Amino acid sequence: MDGVGIHEVVIGSPIHNQLFPLNEDKQVEEVLLAYRERYLALREDPRIKLIIIFKNHGEAAGTSLEHTHSQIVGTAVVPSNIRKKLDEAARYYDDHGRCVYCDSIQEELHFKKRIVMDTERFVVLQPFASRVPFETWIIPKEHQASFGSISVEDSKRFAKVLKETLFRFYSKLNDPAYNFVIHTSPIKDEGEDYYHWHLQIIPRLTTTAGFEMGSGIYINVSFPEETAQFLREG
Amino acid sequence: MDGVGIHEVVIGSPIHNQLFPLNEDKQVEEVLLAYRERYLALREDPRIKLIIIFKNHGEAAGTSLEHTHSQIVGTAVVPSNIRKKLDEAARYYDDHGRCVYCDSIQEELHFKKRIVMDTERFVVLQPFASRVPFETWIIPKEHQASFGSISVEDSKRFAKVLKETLFRFYSKLNDPAYNFVIHTSPIKDEGEDYYHWHLQIIPRLTTTAGFEMGSGIYINVSFPEETAQFLREG
Repeated sequence: MDGVGIHEVVIGSPIHNQLFPLNEDKQVEEVLLAYRERYLALREDPRIKLIIIFKNHGEAAGTSLEHTHSQIVGTAVVPSNIRKKLDEAARYYDDHGRCVYCDSIQEELHFKKRIVMDTERFVVLQPFASRVPFETWIIPKEHQASFGSISVEDSKRFAKVLKETLFRFYSKLNDPAYNFVIHTSPIKDEGEDYYHWHLQIIPRLTTTAGFEMGSGIYINVSFPEETAQFLREG
Repeated sequence: MDGVGIHEVVIGSPIHNQLFPLNEDKQVEEVLLAYRERYLALREDPRIKLIIIFKNHGEAAGTSLEHTHSQIVGTAVVPSNIRKKLDEAARYYDDHGRCVYCDSIQEELHFKKRIVMDTERFVVLQPFASRVPFETWIIPKEHQASFGSISVEDSKRFAKVLKETLFRFYSKLNDPAYNFVIHTSPIKDEGEDYYHWHLQIIPRLTTTAGFEMGSGIYINVSFPEETAQFLREG
């Protein structure tokens, strides 16, 4: 493996102190369209195996710059953590003949209590086994393994849903530090039936400590059913 | 699996504001002897599969109490992260017929540059692929898969080495927040030749962010050869 990789920074606003969810809709759309455009460009580079798009907001989330921004990294390897996620999804597919994310969306929409927002194309939910309080995922309802499959129209819808979700964090949780990460398939697996891209928001309201480090088990003191309700209610 | 587990708190000093490495030697010895005693007691409980001993120091390390303390958790499962570590160690053993930790100790002692301290029974080193600046491990030189195999005499020696290492963190890095965790084999694997218990100190000088979450790859801006030298020099 070469020590090669790609790192790009997407500036989220021309205004220095602007918080991302307080941007105009149009501005957030442009950020999401930039993600899409850069994804599609970077995936053509044969050295790049996986593209990770993420944002760090606030000091507790490890941000290094105040001006709202997000980052795109192309790695020359598929990291073992990601490979494990894919393997588990493939195993479910082999057992059931269906995508585990598609199945989860159906179950969650039926159960309702962990849903934060339900729109035509995207669902916002808090996972059954949330690692941290208020962990929140945005998932496209249509099966797509890769973020690179998102259309221009859906990018705009995604922007709207992301902005609204982050605005609720901002207004209801007093502008918490958070990271968001788009989990998408490695480039060579973009056509797979078993994986399904999604965006994870991890608010940094708590701190992982020795137990998490020593076990990989997360202590979460809150119920996603309750925190989802809190974000759901207007 | 039952929802059973064990959680104990070890108070590190009778003095409220005492920092752990500023304790008398005798006091630190008693903490380590308590770890050993409780490990040996908890391992008799057939519901417990793994015992994790750890300490969180400082707010950035997720500590919840000011008074110096550490914690012992017995889990009813072997978490998948730990199982993966064991599997990798077993694979090395199968390939080479030797413990990967024993081999690493020999290589590190030969290379010298990542050694913080070398004593008769324990070596303090910074791993080749340190995840964070100043990540430091204390490893017994004798092959022992389980912390439960430590003798009373070695517990006292271990206390001395741990105290000295943490004192160097305290004095040279201005009392940083840190976690330490004892990684030891699951109880059923205590006699295995492929695993080797050790203590990991993870200083919280930096914050993991979206890239680490999205990839499991750690960005470390420092070289262990340089940080080990910094801690080594008196």
